[in-house]
Amino acid sequence: MAQSDAYIYATYRVVDKPNQLQARADGIAIGLTVGSWTDLPQSKQDSVRQHCGIVASIEEVDAGARPDGTVTADITIGYPVINFTPTFAALLTTVFGKLSMDGLIKLVGLQIPEPFARAFPGPKFGVNGIRDRLKVYNRPLLMSIFKSCIGNNLDELTAHFTEQALGGADLIKDDEIFFTEAYATPEARVEAYTKAMERTRRETGKDVLYAVNLTGPVFELRDRARRLSDLGAGALLLNVFAYGLDVLRELAADPDIQVPIMAHPAVSGALYAAPQHGIAADILLGQLLRLGGADIVIYPSPYGSVTLERTVGQQLVSALRTPGPHNVCLPAPSAGIHPGLVPILLQDMGVDFIVNAGGGIHGHPDGATAGGQAFTAAIDAALAGVPLAEAANHSEPLRKALLRWGEAK
Amino acid sequence: MAQSDAYIYATYRVVDKPNQLQARADGIAIGLTVGSWTDLPQSKQDSVRQHCGIVASIEEVDAGARPDGTVTADITIGYPVINFTPTFAALLTTVFGKLSMDGLIKLVGLQIPEPFARAFPGPKFGVNGIRDRLKVYNRPLLMSIFKSCIGNNLDELTAHFTEQALGGADLIKDDEIFFTEAYATPEARVEAYTKAMERTRRETGKDVLYAVNLTGPVFELRDRARRLSDLGAGALLLNVFAYGLDVLRELAADPDIQVPIMAHPAVSGALYAAPQHGIAADILLGQLLRLGGADIVIYPSPYGSVTLERTVGQQLVSALRTPGPHNVCLPAPSAGIHPGLVPILLQDMGVDFIVNAGGGIHGHPDGATAGGQAFTAAIDAALAGVPLAEAANHSEPLRKALLRWGEAK
Ligand SMILES: [Mg+2]
Ligand SMILES: [Mg+2]
Repeated sequence: MAQSDAYIYATYRVVDKPNQLQARADGIAIGLTVGSWTDLPQSKQDSVRQHCGIVASIEEVDAGARPDGTVTADITIGYPVINFTPTFAALLTTVFGKLSMDGLIKLVGLQIPEPFARAFPGPKFGVNGIRDRLKVYNRPLLMSIFKSCIGNNLDELTAHFTEQALGGADLIKDDEIFFTEAYATPEARVEAYTKAMERTRRETGKDVLYAVNLTGPVFELRDRARRLSDLGAGALLLNVFAYGLDVLRELAADPDIQVPIMAHPAVSGALYAAPQHGIAADILLGQLLRLGGADIVIYPSPYGSVTLERTVGQQLVSALRTPGPHNVCLPAPSAGIHPGLVPILLQDMGVDFIVNAGGGIHGHPDGATAGGQAFTAAIDAALAGVPLAEAANHSEPLRKALLRWGEAK
Repeated sequence: MAQSDAYIYATYRVVDKPNQLQARADGIAIGLTVGSWTDLPQSKQDSVRQHCGIVASIEEVDAGARPDGTVTADITIGYPVINFTPTFAALLTTVFGKLSMDGLIKLVGLQIPEPFARAFPGPKFGVNGIRDRLKVYNRPLLMSIFKSCIGNNLDELTAHFTEQALGGADLIKDDEIFFTEAYATPEARVEAYTKAMERTRRETGKDVLYAVNLTGPVFELRDRARRLSDLGAGALLLNVFAYGLDVLRELAADPDIQVPIMAHPAVSGALYAAPQHGIAADILLGQLLRLGGADIVIYPSPYGSVTLERTVGQQLVSALRTPGPHNVCLPAPSAGIHPGLVPILLQDMGVDFIVNAGGGIHGHPDGATAGGQAFTAAIDAALAGVPLAEAANHSEPLRKALLRWGEAK
């Protein structure tokens, strides 16, 4: 497929009759750009041509037609970049607006030319920026997820934070469903945890980035993000797919928000999980989140109960890391992570990722602090090439964790 | 299922083993509210109880188990209202955040208690408010969709607007993919079309509401909406699912925006169209759009190529109209609408809906003005109980339209 910087290329996997594919592709290329073509006067056709979409390719991906005569095919359409403003609203409405409702059709490819991509912010910090903040290099980061937030008052939450921080976590994140401010506002949490961190630092010698859930009315999020940034939040947890990708984009582009953004995948399954509808996970959680400026991307790990197929997970991670105009994101594969998985995680992910655990920390028989310590011991061991079973001889927390969860092979 | 105003009830259609259903339901009720339960001290359990979700019901909807032992079942969970702030971000993140990624699961029911619903704006105008603006009662409204926008300059666009207005349309809407401002900003379009309308009104005696595509950076939309409202826009076309449902909600709640909002379903198919994933169309395009304050809801008609199943369409329309705390929306079934469908549309929809046509107007052999006239003749005939074939004797535009598209039976 010949590529041009003048076009955004979208690939759709459709199910249709082979003899319908060309007409369908033509209909998309014209219908979703200039609307009509052949009935324009010649003079007007010339000026409109630069705005008209093109059919880049049509490829059948099935071995043969099904009993009903349909095949699966990939249709790639080039949309002129000049039709777009650099917003996700323009991008999504054009390449998968009406088409999202057009029967069996999934957006499986999206190629954005670099000049257009550069109009999007990408991650402000990325892997390197976050490592510089924590002064932690050459190992994965450890993130601890609050076990419960709703219904706890600020003192209880702060005690819970402290317990996690003492375990050696690099990051601690809010529960994504924590929206109520009845007991503690995000601002109050940042202030209280920052003070708590001053105490835990004396014991652990470590900084912790607290990822506060950025909640509230959408048009107030920017002010709140600036405020939380000024108060010293370690990161902003954003439910990107509940609030909208352009919210991410504009927060990431804002120079007054000097704090990494952590994208949560809540609601995204409604968009990516169906086999023949929606938007592929590597586009949605990989390409678009990086384009929009997520520094950290939480996504369903292939290890736990909420899973993504392993190859899809690899494509997603590759979209977060592949060389390009934007900083590289930190992937945080999530769900079902326990210390016994750490060697496999390192093998699958390298060192630039986040070991993200909730139950795998809080479920430790000796509590969350020991749970964090078991993870740090497992990370040190795996980096040194020491088998976990051996390292457990020198770490009581790890020994108990392995008894509880075992070691994945 | 016992209902309480203290809970939001969400129903999930899942596929699972029968003996897993209770544990799964319990896991949702607790995991997506207070996070954990049994390991809390008794004193704390009491204070946390009010925040804990409940399993309202589990019903198998299959006749029997499949060969792999799974069944289809509806699980209904009650989430305490006090866990939420009245935003779509809180609602969606909680009831279908993580769960959206949890295998075969579709959100098929959502019951929002009236006190919580009242914290959402609902339509500011609704059917009655829009009728009052147009002073048109007791008949469906006619909306004409710009055939092409991209690549046209303001003079060309204005000529196109005029052509449509002369056909007798009540509303004229932008193409939803019209984002570029290279040739004309939304503000310039509103100003130019408002002047054009002063001229067409002399000829037709009719007002026209111009639905301008509300585009731009998300944090600037409110200011732009206020500006377009002040300039006299007839309606704001909003790509709700590209920008986010909370954008709709906050625009609808803004007292400085005195103009109806028209919700476009672009991108929504990625959320509703899959059989076993995502969010049911009647919730997404019906219930949530009304809650968020869409005055007009465009949705895929069951008549055209981009279709919704007929029963789903009926549920959707019923969600827009059912008695409740909010104004009633105007449904605009779209795609594939031509004059020959008008009697069926009236039969299916009553009079409170919008006849929304693009190709069915512009594809008229005598052009868009005749195309609009054919529709108004068809609407008048259908209301009077006159067969279209008979009415065509008195309307040359309708006669030619019926030759072109036929009459649907
Ligand atoms: Mg959680
Ligand atoms: Mg269109």
